[in-house]
Amino acid sequence: MEDKDHTIKSVCVVHNDTATGITSDIPAIRKAIDRAGHTALFFVDTISSLGSIDYRHDEWGVDVTVGGSQKGLMLPPGLSFNAISKKALVASGEAKLPRSYWDWQDMLNANKQGVFPYTPATNLLYGLRESIRMLLEEGLDQVFSRHCRLAEATRAAVQAWGLELNALNQSEYSNSLTAVVLPQGHDADAFRKGVLECFNVSLGNGLGRLNGKVFRIGHLGDFNEPMLLGTLGAIEMGLELAEIPHRPEGVRAAMSNLVENNR
Amino acid sequence: MEDKDHTIKSVCVVHNDTATGITSDIPAIRKAIDRAGHTALFFVDTISSLGSIDYRHDEWGVDVTVGGSQKGLMLPPGLSFNAISKKALVASGEAKLPRSYWDWQDMLNANKQGVFPYTPATNLLYGLRESIRMLLEEGLDQVFSRHCRLAEATRAAVQAWGLELNALNQSEYSNSLTAVVLPQGHDADAFRKGVLECFNVSLGNGLGRLNGKVFRIGHLGDFNEPMLLGTLGAIEMGLELAEIPHRPEGVRAAMSNLVENNR
Amino acid sequence: MEDKDHTIKSVCVVHNDTATGITSDIPAIRKAIDRAGHTALFFVDTISSLGSIDYRHDEWGVDVTVGGSQKGLMLPPGLSFNAISKKALVASGEAKLPRSYWDWQDMLNANKQGVFPYTPATNLLYGLRESIRMLLEEGLDQVFSRHCRLAEATRAAVQAWGLELNALNQSEYSNSLTAVVLPQGHDADAFRKGVLECFNVSLGNGLGRLNGKVFRIGHLGDFNEPMLLGTLGAIEMGLELAEIPHRPEGVRAAMSNLVENNR
Amino acid sequence: MEDKDHTIKSVCVVHNDTATGITSDIPAIRKAIDRAGHTALFFVDTISSLGSIDYRHDEWGVDVTVGGSQKGLMLPPGLSFNAISKKALVASGEAKLPRSYWDWQDMLNANKQGVFPYTPATNLLYGLRESIRMLLEEGLDQVFSRHCRLAEATRAAVQAWGLELNALNQSEYSNSLTAVVLPQGHDADAFRKGVLECFNVSLGNGLGRLNGKVFRIGHLGDFNEPMLLGTLGAIEMGLELAEIPHRPEGVRAAMSNLVENNR
Repeated sequence: MEDKDHTIKSVCVVHNDTATGITSDIPAIRKAIDRAGHTALFFVDTISSLGSIDYRHDEWGVDVTVGGSQKGLMLPPGLSFNAISKKALVASGEAKLPRSYWDWQDMLNANKQGVFPYTPATNLLYGLRESIRMLLEEGLDQVFSRHCRLAEATRAAVQAWGLELNALNQSEYSNSLTAVVLPQGHDADAFRKGVLECFNVSLGNGLGRLNGKVFRIGHLGDFNEPMLLGTLGAIEMGLELAEIPHRPEGVRAAMSNLVENNR
Repeated sequence: MEDKDHTIKSVCVVHNDTATGITSDIPAIRKAIDRAGHTALFFVDTISSLGSIDYRHDEWGVDVTVGGSQKGLMLPPGLSFNAISKKALVASGEAKLPRSYWDWQDMLNANKQGVFPYTPATNLLYGLRESIRMLLEEGLDQVFSRHCRLAEATRAAVQAWGLELNALNQSEYSNSLTAVVLPQGHDADAFRKGVLECFNVSLGNGLGRLNGKVFRIGHLGDFNEPMLLGTLGAIEMGLELAEIPHRPEGVRAAMSNLVENNR
Repeated sequence: MEDKDHTIKSVCVVHNDTATGITSDIPAIRKAIDRAGHTALFFVDTISSLGSIDYRHDEWGVDVTVGGSQKGLMLPPGLSFNAISKKALVASGEAKLPRSYWDWQDMLNANKQGVFPYTPATNLLYGLRESIRMLLEEGLDQVFSRHCRLAEATRAAVQAWGLELNALNQSEYSNSLTAVVLPQGHDADAFRKGVLECFNVSLGNGLGRLNGKVFRIGHLGDFNEPMLLGTLGAIEMGLELAEIPHRPEGVRAAMSNLVENNR
Repeated sequence: MEDKDHTIKSVCVVHNDTATGITSDIPAIRKAIDRAGHTALFFVDTISSLGSIDYRHDEWGVDVTVGGSQKGLMLPPGLSFNAISKKALVASGEAKLPRSYWDWQDMLNANKQGVFPYTPATNLLYGLRESIRMLLEEGLDQVFSRHCRLAEATRAAVQAWGLELNALNQSEYSNSLTAVVLPQGHDADAFRKGVLECFNVSLGNGLGRLNGKVFRIGHLGDFNEPMLLGTLGAIEMGLELAEIPHRPEGVRAAMSNLVENNR
């Protein structure tokens, strides 16, 4: 970090990157900022990790965490959450950018009396109460280990197929989604279309420069073993129909992996 | 048929037997009754076939068909249907058994004016309208061939595992459910319990004298390829965990079968 | 009771009569049976009272009580309940009428293990759990007094209109519905049609020989003051539009009555 | 308008003001801007009018219209809409305020291909399709005249009670809500609390400087005659219980008004 004058105001990181299937090491980034003695605020996007992968706003020294309702919280889209540190709140109070809807202070003032400054998405708040109950009933440790188990089985399938994970660094494998690279010359979007039409499974597309090269398997939120095997099975059948070179051993590898995890 | 005096009043047949996974040949039974010149009424139970396996009340000469909402019609339990021939209606008018709720005539009288003689399960009637729309939108031929395809893949899996189908006669294989016999000495209920606890898949139990010896795979109604592979995967993993002798090649066989069907 | 040989096997009574808006005095009927030393079983239909008007199967010495989900229990139609005395169970065991679906013994045997002999209307059972929670949360005494309060306000409106209650005996007024007699020469069904078309309120029709002469106001189940006033208001406006002789003071009288009840 | 140098960039108006129960004359304001030859953009908030009161973005020369899902469109809160003129779009392209989520261009680019730049509230979009179908089935003219009819009946009730409408100018009366001023010395919030507790009707509170002095009756969206009479009845009873000086003739006046409208 060469920003010796501290002109950089914030370090923005995605905890779990939906495009690449990579989970960042948030505590390590916090340490790097601290080591540099930098004063920048630390912002983390947890949209595709919150409720599926362990995350600790306070303990990890994050200033602003952004989450959403529509993934690990198993709700329809429509709610977003901010967790904010005192430092972020002070900085927000001093910020000069005109703002209204996004102003934390209006929300904080109203929240003290249990209300919202604007009309909230009431129905989703009832859903949120229920989804939090479900997560606590299963137990957060169990929820995280379930997603870990299903993610490992997914990666076992990809390796057995002989396909390449988009994530190269094992310590950064995402437990909420897996991006898979198709062999060169094969169109990931045509493949995805075939899987959807033949087998009713909608795979994620490659985002940005991964477009057409990658497909993505979501295994977050309300997800279990048979849902994963149905998904992997549709992919394996789709690979065969699309004549993409692979070994038809992915589902079998995933099952072996899951059985080991159940012993 | 030795009932030369025609004391038998009705021949009652289950079109698709939920306990055994066997589909009866209704036209053949009709022909046998006719060949014997017998006057008995012909009753057919279509609870687990209606909307999943082809069935023809008029064309097959059935007198009374009984159906239900909770299987092929993809609704909650709570509605049952009767299709009745003129002959059955005449017999009912002459029958001496006291009856009230089950009396067709009250229903027929009220139905003429578009109403019911008693309070009907109104909410399910709205559901029924929608489920019929869904079946017609897919097309009945497509619906039946989908269940045929998924049933064949299921049987391919069972054969690949080296397990025994409860149905012995190929022409009687059911396309809405498959009953699988476990090797002697293995408790089907303990196996089912394990699959449910480890993998969230609830298999049907063996009914009557098949209790503990058989488990059943339902593949009727709102069902597709990934749902089937998830189910078969849970079974294959459960067989391994329960140390029941089998070849771990069932899911793979089902996929090969489904791919062939998609070419 | 002149049935000295006890050939009558059951006395069947409707606790709350949906056609007439009359609630029967069940304990008085029980006493009359006992005074006559008669051995008949005592059957009570509570379809339109259960959960809205106080009812006590055991305390009142009833042998068979029949209830349903679709009124005071605030559920869709589709469930019915029987409460049975030992005497009724013994009689059922000795009864000669062939029966299958209605046979209590099959149900009782299966219920011991927490299951049903046939496929139950599962979804409604979840609803039942919730509606019972709602009734207990409000408190049965409060539920019954709410229906009493709303029924009294309804009758105050009818009297203020100068119309006639179908129920003549004050001690038999129903707290779950009120049947109102229109002046001779006025068609109750035409009136009901007008109220529905102009003001979106569906009134009950006169049943049997009351057809065309009577309309019925339901005030049972999930019902409160504004719902009642909306209903009475639609009726009062409908009376004016249909030019049926009345004093336009019914809603006002109902409000005065409800205010008195809230002091 | 003394802004001769055109430093004012936009004229922002609420079509229907939720706090005061006043509907603004949008075409008149447009004319005033045009008469002054002013270049400011014309912004209109239609949150509490869209779908309940006639509104015409193009015809009335509005540059930016803001609407929401949760009132006249009869949906849960969670969707908001912008209608934008070419002039507004050009101005937006030249605007210097940093923005991201609120940037129209991202939305317009994505919308061309039928998609959204961010995760939309998918479930509400299905609801929107249905609520638009409902509005068109009733017919927009009928919808607007229904709200007019119900609003007039509400105002007839307020006048009959002898209470004061917050809106003084008849041409500005809102057809989607009515704000009512309580006589001095009476606490509107205590009154509202009593109506809610005794009669289950939740009235709107006075906003801003009207707090404690005014209560508001919403009569927009999915609303009909019995719902209005239930609401007015609860208010009339609440006025009596709270001993607020009034004539108990409001509901009667509303009914007379509605009957006249139905002849």
